Amino acid sequence: MMNGEISKSSSQQLSIENAKELVNSVDAFLFDCDGVIWKGDKLIDGVPQTLDMLRSLGKKLVFVTNNSTKSRRKYAEKFHSLGIPVNEDEIFSSSFAAAMYLKVNDFPIEKKVYVIGEEGILEELELAGFTALGGPADGKKNPELKSNCLFEHDKSVGAVVVGLDQYINFYKLQYGALCIRENPGCLFIATNRDASGHLTDLQEWPGAGCMVAAVCGATQKEPIVVGKPSTFLMDFLLQKYNITTSRMCMVGDRLDTDILFGQNAGCRTLLVFSGVVNESAFQDLSKELQVQPEFYTNSVSDILKYV
Amino acid sequence: MMNGEISKSSSQQLSIENAKELVNSVDAFLFDCDGVIWKGDKLIDGVPQTLDMLRSLGKKLVFVTNNSTKSRRKYAEKFHSLGIPVNEDEIFSSSFAAAMYLKVNDFPIEKKVYVIGEEGILEELELAGFTALGGPADGKKNPELKSNCLFEHDKSVGAVVVGLDQYINFYKLQYGALCIRENPGCLFIATNRDASGHLTDLQEWPGAGCMVAAVCGATQKEPIVVGKPSTFLMDFLLQKYNITTSRMCMVGDRLDTDILFGQNAGCRTLLVFSGVVNESAFQDLSKELQVQPEFYTNSVSDILKYV
Repeated sequence: MMNGEISKSSSQQLSIENAKELVNSVDAFLFDCDGVIWKGDKLIDGVPQTLDMLRSLGKKLVFVTNNSTKSRRKYAEKFHSLGIPVNEDEIFSSSFAAAMYLKVNDFPIEKKVYVIGEEGILEELELAGFTALGGPADGKKNPELKSNCLFEHDKSVGAVVVGLDQYINFYKLQYGALCIRENPGCLFIATNRDASGHLTDLQEWPGAGCMVAAVCGATQKEPIVVGKPSTFLMDFLLQKYNITTSRMCMVGDRLDTDILFGQNAGCRTLLVFSGVVNESAFQDLSKELQVQPEFYTNSVSDILKYV
Repeated sequence: MMNGEISKSSSQQLSIENAKELVNSVDAFLFDCDGVIWKGDKLIDGVPQTLDMLRSLGKKLVFVTNNSTKSRRKYAEKFHSLGIPVNEDEIFSSSFAAAMYLKVNDFPIEKKVYVIGEEGILEELELAGFTALGGPADGKKNPELKSNCLFEHDKSVGAVVVGLDQYINFYKLQYGALCIRENPGCLFIATNRDASGHLTDLQEWPGAGCMVAAVCGATQKEPIVVGKPSTFLMDFLLQKYNITTSRMCMVGDRLDTDILFGQNAGCRTLLVFSGVVNESAFQDLSKELQVQPEFYTNSVSDILKYV
């Protein structure tokens, strides 16, 4: 398989020559968002112009983000507010993935879903017709540790979805852990396991990997991961776009999620240094990395520069 | 080694015959507390009488707890309030272990320690002469995720200690993760990794393993564990009591911490079913368990019954 060969060979820096070849041989670009399109609420330089150019060449643009705090609808609003016209159905977020995972697995509609995470997961679950508990509503709750008091949980919860949650607390951890441990067959779904993310422009913050690990630590169970690097979302993408994965290029700032997702799915891959991984760390470690991108460059805008 | 042989053979139920042999061949009993002596704030039936009997036979009693929420002083107060006379220096808590780990490793006194945990860790650190930050003081803080705002952390933090924290939040997780990631040489110390514990009498709650995993998930680093099953505390115990470990018996309710600690240290071991592990689960799984206690019984009071 072509992609298998690429992933084993060493990575190439993006250049005038190979950028043209890449763009010509690809019909769709899949972009991660945090650290690629923006950092927190700040656009990364040159992104709108690059996306315009790719669209003008007839390329499909798709946005695949592990950040579950927003729904697809809210992401579309964010893109618009930053001056980038993107449709809701071009966005594949891990919040959407969690809801779709339940849907394609015929999760019983009468069961409930407990959420350790933010608004985006709740909105996607509700759009898919499921009843969600927890999330922001439990953000200020504190359990009392008293004799003869039982911390009650809903026995009809059949799935716990865990994503990035800046209001993580002991109440939610106990609630989620009880459902997973005590409700027979309760699913444990992680939107993703990113250790960190650029929630603000100036620095990284704990990612969903932090909250997911906390639930693993409390339950000693491992989750089903629906975001990158899992290729679960690829089926939805392929339904929408009639393009083979070898004619897609995944562009991301993380090796363990974005680039691995691209490789797992059989896409071309481009690592950018505008997010979590910086060039010097990549160069220092490149020979020891288990995941190698096909190409690497500073930022998405280099595609515009070279093509 | 005698202990190695015992741990490989199958476990025996405690009986009149082997209980007498065990008590006669042992000079010190090491007890876990949560699920062995008490559940939450309730004593387990027959415990005071059993401890009195063992003391009257001249046995040393030692209490080795992974629960870091209290200092040794506070544990002594809790024992007294429950009508059990125990001295502070008979208690070896993981909060004490964290402070002693820094002390024996010559942690520089001018550096600070950031705590994700409760009062017990702070008190032990301060008793050992260290400056501690975080803990309960950061329990109600919420970071703002805004553009151009940098979440600042103290560059003189040289160690992050993580234990059970019922006030775990995103602020503490970001603070601890930043210290571990950005302060050169910063230690990451876990009091213990228990998945759960009987914080109340009626049910289990997420244990320190939950908070420790969250920090691992955010930093992708592994901690130094100072509580059980690490035998770090055994050196302090041996300094105090001139008893070889083969003449000690570790009594606990958890295989992966208590019994493993006893085996790692070369002690006899007794599993009780008054806490996390119940008899039917133990019997169902006993052949597949990697950690096998030498003896098992319902509760500590069976020692009194059989001897």
